[in-house]
Amino acid sequence: MSKLDALIKPQSIALIGASENPDKIGFQILNNLIEGGFGGQLYPVNPKGGEILGQKVYTSVKEIAEVPDLAVIVIPGTFVIAAAKEVAEKGIKALIVISAGFAEIDEKGAALQIELADLCRENDISLLGPNCLGFLNANDKINASFAKNMPKLGKVSLLSQSGAIISSMIDWSKSAPIGFSKIFSLGNKALLTEAELLEYLYNDPETTVIIGYIENLIVSDSLTEVLTKYSKTKPTILLFGGKSSFGAVAARSHTGSVVSSYLTIKTYLEQAGVILANNLEELLLFAQIFSSYQKIEGDRIAIVTNAGGPSIAAVDALSEIGLKLAVLSDETQSELKKVLKPEASVKNPVDILGDADETGYQAAISIVDKDPNTDGILVLLTPQSSTKISETAEVIAKFEGQKPIISSFVGGEILIGAKKIIETAEKSCFSFPEEAIDAMRGLVDFSTRKVCLGENAPATELYDTDKLDESLEKFNLPSVQYITAETLEETIAAGNKIGFPLVLKTANPNIVHKTESSAVTLNINTEAALTEAYEKTPKPVIVGKMVKGKHEIFLGVKKDAGVGTIIAFGTGGIYAEIYKDLAYRITPVTTEMAVEMIHETKMGEILSGARGQKAYELDKLAEIIVNMSKFADNYKNISEIDFNPLIADAENFYVVDARIILD
Amino acid sequence: MSKLDALIKPQSIALIGASENPDKIGFQILNNLIEGGFGGQLYPVNPKGGEILGQKVYTSVKEIAEVPDLAVIVIPGTFVIAAAKEVAEKGIKALIVISAGFAEIDEKGAALQIELADLCRENDISLLGPNCLGFLNANDKINASFAKNMPKLGKVSLLSQSGAIISSMIDWSKSAPIGFSKIFSLGNKALLTEAELLEYLYNDPETTVIIGYIENLIVSDSLTEVLTKYSKTKPTILLFGGKSSFGAVAARSHTGSVVSSYLTIKTYLEQAGVILANNLEELLLFAQIFSSYQKIEGDRIAIVTNAGGPSIAAVDALSEIGLKLAVLSDETQSELKKVLKPEASVKNPVDILGDADETGYQAAISIVDKDPNTDGILVLLTPQSSTKISETAEVIAKFEGQKPIISSFVGGEILIGAKKIIETAEKSCFSFPEEAIDAMRGLVDFSTRKVCLGENAPATELYDTDKLDESLEKFNLPSVQYITAETLEETIAAGNKIGFPLVLKTANPNIVHKTESSAVTLNINTEAALTEAYEKTPKPVIVGKMVKGKHEIFLGVKKDAGVGTIIAFGTGGIYAEIYKDLAYRITPVTTEMAVEMIHETKMGEILSGARGQKAYELDKLAEIIVNMSKFADNYKNISEIDFNPLIADAENFYVVDARIILD
Repeated sequence: MSKLDALIKPQSIALIGASENPDKIGFQILNNLIEGGFGGQLYPVNPKGGEILGQKVYTSVKEIAEVPDLAVIVIPGTFVIAAAKEVAEKGIKALIVISAGFAEIDEKGAALQIELADLCRENDISLLGPNCLGFLNANDKINASFAKNMPKLGKVSLLSQSGAIISSMIDWSKSAPIGFSKIFSLGNKALLTEAELLEYLYNDPETTVIIGYIENLIVSDSLTEVLTKYSKTKPTILLFGGKSSFGAVAARSHTGSVVSSYLTIKTYLEQAGVILANNLEELLLFAQIFSSYQKIEGDRIAIVTNAGGPSIAAVDALSEIGLKLAVLSDETQSELKKVLKPEASVKNPVDILGDADETGYQAAISIVDKDPNTDGILVLLTPQSSTKISETAEVIAKFEGQKPIISSFVGGEILIGAKKIIETAEKSCFSFPEEAIDAMRGLVDFSTRKVCLGENAPATELYDTDKLDESLEKFNLPSVQYITAETLEETIAAGNKIGFPLVLKTANPNIVHKTESSAVTLNINTEAALTEAYEKTPKPVIVGKMVKGKHEIFLGVKKDAGVGTIIAFGTGGIYAEIYKDLAYRITPVTTEMAVEMIHETKMGEILSGARGQKAYELDKLAEIIVNMSKFADNYKNISEIDFNPLIADAENFYVVDARIILD
Repeated sequence: MSKLDALIKPQSIALIGASENPDKIGFQILNNLIEGGFGGQLYPVNPKGGEILGQKVYTSVKEIAEVPDLAVIVIPGTFVIAAAKEVAEKGIKALIVISAGFAEIDEKGAALQIELADLCRENDISLLGPNCLGFLNANDKINASFAKNMPKLGKVSLLSQSGAIISSMIDWSKSAPIGFSKIFSLGNKALLTEAELLEYLYNDPETTVIIGYIENLIVSDSLTEVLTKYSKTKPTILLFGGKSSFGAVAARSHTGSVVSSYLTIKTYLEQAGVILANNLEELLLFAQIFSSYQKIEGDRIAIVTNAGGPSIAAVDALSEIGLKLAVLSDETQSELKKVLKPEASVKNPVDILGDADETGYQAAISIVDKDPNTDGILVLLTPQSSTKISETAEVIAKFEGQKPIISSFVGGEILIGAKKIIETAEKSCFSFPEEAIDAMRGLVDFSTRKVCLGENAPATELYDTDKLDESLEKFNLPSVQYITAETLEETIAAGNKIGFPLVLKTANPNIVHKTESSAVTLNINTEAALTEAYEKTPKPVIVGKMVKGKHEIFLGVKKDAGVGTIIAFGTGGIYAEIYKDLAYRITPVTTEMAVEMIHETKMGEILSGARGQKAYELDKLAEIIVNMSKFADNYKNISEIDFNPLIADAENFYVVDARIILD
């Protein structure tokens, strides 16, 4: 039995702050618990005593004879600590603090919140909130929240940092084909965070899909552990609120300016196996599809339709979203020919024509389902004059095939009953073909993407700015030789040692974007030119070999204290930030991940030999990315790194300009 | 009175091919006309005579005493010409051919279709179809189609190349807040095309919004004229079906490979003032918003909400879609402070808190509506425990402000009644904040974008491949001097005339992508090097000045026989197709359009002085784009042009490599 069971499946609940005033939350929660159908023991607590809604009111927690499983506190914030102490003394092991007035308000509130969390931690109490809407468990008929109604029962569980979104979801569940099991309002997350609740839900047999609305995710080792271990067992879909306000902090490097904290979190979650919804509508869409299906073998979709227009729209959507229109086998096509009218199209999309009835659908679906070249079926129906709407819905509802079958009945009122038939059979039916295709994309993502969030060996060494070359060499990062010099004599000596043509740049750490500040001179061919360049460069200077590159590549790193280290690869040069042709991963990066990164970018396409150019040995480049990842992870004090450019000459790759920013 | 009135507002209709078999379209259309409530005279025609559905059946059109306004033909394709001849002889001026069997089938059908069109043209008959679903006019209760039901009456008119989409739209109108006026099934468009029907609808007082589903648009001078003249008077929204199958034909140039025929059509329609919907859902969304509003002064949106989560989602959507979150004036904020609770947020989004009632909404909306810094208002409501849902809907319904007010009531069942209240007042209410924002984007696009499809002077001259330099000079296109040479002596003489460093390339027209075929040698500094380069270059050769460019720009043109000439500007070089950083316009391009094109691209951002680089004189560049447009439009026989690269050196722009492909 989980430690959280006292919170989630309580047999008895004390409500501290029960009120007889219907406008007060202390009344509403008591009412919701009763109306919701809670079958256990309720203990309303109010110093006034008496009776509310037919329930005896206790003047204090102490007065209750047994030890309730759960206490819910709804009194004003300043009185919460005192109440929580009584809860602890009583030995209650689960607490929901609805009350506001904590870290969301001011410094004083934040201090109160820490006190509350410490108190609960010391007494081994599971604390949800403070400043939350509460908790609902539809399986056990517990509405310990001030959301008016219970949701429709189902297998989706929800975590939300917005109470209003919980209210909307509950309302949607009445009409949309989504039912809920557990709903948590996270509030300020003083003690219980996403990590513990997700772990519970992954192990909860009543939950098969987890969705969440999150505004600030608390990334911790335990969250990473939970996601890595379980995220592929149950679809986990998060909508991030406030993406647009996650700006990049004042950028100190190229990498800094292309990596926002949202991008870091997004990359982390994707690697952790989480599916990100772009908006509320998509969150519901994914909740719906995963309530029906959780697995598809690939991305080749067969379409069966009774009309051309909507199937053309579906093909456009497939192409836009990156799924494939299945190529039906010759056998399938000849089977289809046998059962369909001569004018029907037996190629994908299979158009069984406007006068098709349910037997036409049945035949076509059965045949394409068996084709080894298809992974999923999209059934489209438009209500034409002779369309058998509910009969076709029955066919889909009863169909037991090998592949997921998702439908779109394109229209409004006349189709409502048919959609219900399909949904009752736990299959998904959407109003628009594009919705069905988007839902399929979610299914393909969940089924095919792997968790690739590795464990990081803790950084141990401190990076020494004077030892760049040595450090690059240690991590097999091929770099052009550089010599730092202070005086003109040293500079000329270094130049002669390296050999012309040379490049001269500043070693002054205050000059970040070198090209902009004219702090780099290229193509120096003579001692005279070197002298001239020396005069105008901020001291100390760095002398290096001029490498003639064919391609300028970007490789950068940024460490995010919360989430980890993010690495960026793509098109380099001084316009790296403008072209933003970059792929991202959280370290540690494996060779496989590095190869993927390369192929996600246009630079990768170029280096692969696009436009008749020479193809590079990309495994060499992948190795450099892997080494960059190790390099960054090795040093405690590195904050950002730019290799820009990493130059590809005729054959090889060289770090020409490395910039490292320390904490 | 329009020539099309006989088709669209007939007083009497002959149905040729009326049938007593309910499975036949000839029965269904008669039934639909009757059930739809057509008040004029019906003349079912069938050689068998008798009576169908209580109507006297005429054995032939000749037998009818009067001349009906409209004839509808539903007999098999091969008999249509004979029937159409009778229609012509009778003097009927409007004809709908439902029957299939024409150009959609085979060559023979195509010939039949031409015969039919010619017959109608000669007899001044307006012909809709063949191969269509028919026509509906909800204002006059005419259902001359085999779509089962009449749509809800409204002010949206629809053109569709898919009959099934018409059926779906009719069904949607029963539940969605969209009503229709006229619905045309276009079929094979043998005579009546989009141009004539759009012209009618633009002048139809019963239509205020025009939507369309189009698979192949017939672009003609008259379509361009109609759109240019009227498209800003009524919102015109088109969904293009089959975008993904509009591949580029075998590319003969860079421009050829980056311009698909869909891209050309899309660019044309956008410049013509048409709004393109991305999918069916968006087509309905835009129909809905434009049924409520047709004008917004700008893109600064104020949000009034009773909850944080959904308003955060709305702000994310605003940012993603490119609209602005209005910055409320100090005065507005202090007015809001007076009427709202102290905890409310008076900055945008204005959060009037979870317990807000309708008076809170009323007050907040009235105040932000008056703020000169806002152009439109988005009202968000989530159903929380004390939310006054229908009362708030009444407030919105009755609100008479200065700005468009669009709402999103976030949830399902509990909100249905409230949405109806708002919709009845001809205002829009959506289920998701993101839908409301997307709808607002459509409104902003329609209100702010100008028609910029100019009239093209017809091309007159023939381009002579030998006169490149002369032609470039004539159109003020600054180019590097080139001399064509056949022998080594000529080559060296040319080189000495131009002056080293030189570039040598082939003039052989069969070598298209020069870099790939090693047919270009750069940086030739000596006669010896020139000789060496000459030896390996396919003859004849071209000798030119080596220009050291800072930036490689792409400027290309492609002529599309149907639509016109499209011009592309952006990042050049051999990877132009990979980076696809390009802006497009249909010629003629004005200076203003050229400046817009520059600023739409990343190359434009770079040339504007990004990353601390020098800013170029962009009006010089805009002039080159305008001249390129004139150049392309001047010559009849030019098919494609690549200027790649157009080089920007320290100060100026030069055409370094021009490739012209003739028809």
